[in-house]
Amino acid sequence: MVAVHATTLDAHRHISSARVDATLTALFDNRPAASPRLEAAMRHGLLMGGKRLRPMLVYLAGQALGADAQALDAPAAAVELIHAYSLIHDDLPAMDDDDLRRGQPTVHRAFDDATAILAGDALQALAFEVIAADGHPRLGALIHILASAAGRDGMVAGQALDMAAMGQSIDTAVLETMHAHKTGALIEASVRLGGLTAVCEDDPRLEALGRYARAIGLAFQVHDDVLDVTGNSAVLGKTAGADAARAKPTYPGLLGLDGAQHKARALIDDAVAALTPLGKPAAPLADLAHYIIERDH
Amino acid sequence: MVAVHATTLDAHRHISSARVDATLTALFDNRPAASPRLEAAMRHGLLMGGKRLRPMLVYLAGQALGADAQALDAPAAAVELIHAYSLIHDDLPAMDDDDLRRGQPTVHRAFDDATAILAGDALQALAFEVIAADGHPRLGALIHILASAAGRDGMVAGQALDMAAMGQSIDTAVLETMHAHKTGALIEASVRLGGLTAVCEDDPRLEALGRYARAIGLAFQVHDDVLDVTGNSAVLGKTAGADAARAKPTYPGLLGLDGAQHKARALIDDAVAALTPLGKPAAPLADLAHYIIERDH
Repeated sequence: MVAVHATTLDAHRHISSARVDATLTALFDNRPAASPRLEAAMRHGLLMGGKRLRPMLVYLAGQALGADAQALDAPAAAVELIHAYSLIHDDLPAMDDDDLRRGQPTVHRAFDDATAILAGDALQALAFEVIAADGHPRLGALIHILASAAGRDGMVAGQALDMAAMGQSIDTAVLETMHAHKTGALIEASVRLGGLTAVCEDDPRLEALGRYARAIGLAFQVHDDVLDVTGNSAVLGKTAGADAARAKPTYPGLLGLDGAQHKARALIDDAVAALTPLGKPAAPLADLAHYIIERDH
Repeated sequence: MVAVHATTLDAHRHISSARVDATLTALFDNRPAASPRLEAAMRHGLLMGGKRLRPMLVYLAGQALGADAQALDAPAAAVELIHAYSLIHDDLPAMDDDDLRRGQPTVHRAFDDATAILAGDALQALAFEVIAADGHPRLGALIHILASAAGRDGMVAGQALDMAAMGQSIDTAVLETMHAHKTGALIEASVRLGGLTAVCEDDPRLEALGRYARAIGLAFQVHDDVLDVTGNSAVLGKTAGADAARAKPTYPGLLGLDGAQHKARALIDDAVAALTPLGKPAAPLADLAHYIIERDH
């Protein structure tokens, strides 16, 4: 069973990665750069690799509800631009102080702190520029989803909570709130953007997608914490054991390694169950849910 | 003459400041904050004062072309959110390293570097959330104007060029390119957002507004450099003489103090001349142009 869904999923991953990478690369082609150093740093943070999980969620969710891949290119690129900017800022010395990301020097190591701050800022602006460019009839709602998931009600709040939790003893409920914002919000937004590109706000399938998205968002973070314990730096492309080293609260720390792995599996079961009303077109989303807790990086 | 236009302009300033402050304050009222510390830092950077020049440009440009003030509240708030975020990031130790802004401790001094980075990030996201909220029929074009002025083709590129120019010997053309991006782009965007909220893309008055905006954008920066030489820290709300202290290229440095003041006046004459086709409704914009080079902070 793993082999079957993995093969199909690999095909989807290759298609959606190729599409989003083409969109992102084209943003830097054949244009005069006001600051070439700034754009080199943006490219470094954006194009040096990565799983492209969030764009894949946009494509699979949108296609499950009948959208064409082409209509999904802009929101898929936008969520990756937001994700890439957040990694650049999170890696800064003032935050997580990481030297390595996706097996490469982080942007502030390859350039400097100021350029890394500015590259992140410019990638965020570019996300909104890209999603606005194709004049979708529900553009206002799409931007609301992206902006609220990215900002003080989502990802940025999660990072602020994460900084505040460093070295603190916190319980599972607080850890879940933090991750629901830090990682979950943008994963959920990716699914919702795909869905809303395809259908109107009142389509009941959006609610099913929403439940799927919340479950995989949390499972993703639980598995990330597990990988920090069980993985190795070469495969992860970042420093394994970093969470423990900086006394960061984690699921294995709170629930034990077995407990965390069990929680991740239960969340994936919930996610797959939520997809039932969507039928066969949602099969790739179910495969992706399984992949989220089977990946080794 | 100065007294007459100053009185009228003061009335416009009070009205537009009150409107935008009400919009911005309401963004923080009666809502649960996921991270109260993050939102306190956002409020500190956004609401601790400021001239509200960019919102006033949105209101005056939009009203010159017949828009209601209410229709301009969202873009006016959005440009101030972008401006506030940029000040927070520019003040960081990795950039200009300023302790004082608008007479108050900068956000990273009142909080910490990580919180300041995150508060800026969240204010940028909020700018796009606010402008998207009221579903303007030309929303795609409005967001394009804001995002491109804020990002790698505008303000962020200008800050990157500014960092690169520090301690370098540069000529007037390079200095102008830098400022056209760093300060000019968002000032121009404010005028264009006001205009485009009022009328369609093909209205010829938008071109006149564009010429006005480019001239005042540059004049604003020239006068800022002049104030760094002639002003005092208490009135400025920031450290006077800071540019010279950090060997920053400036207009008085390149053209002499008289030359810089003359250039600013010539730009304002150009700006006012550009308004001729707009007739009497543009009179407050002409008054604002004069104010830009008469202000003492």
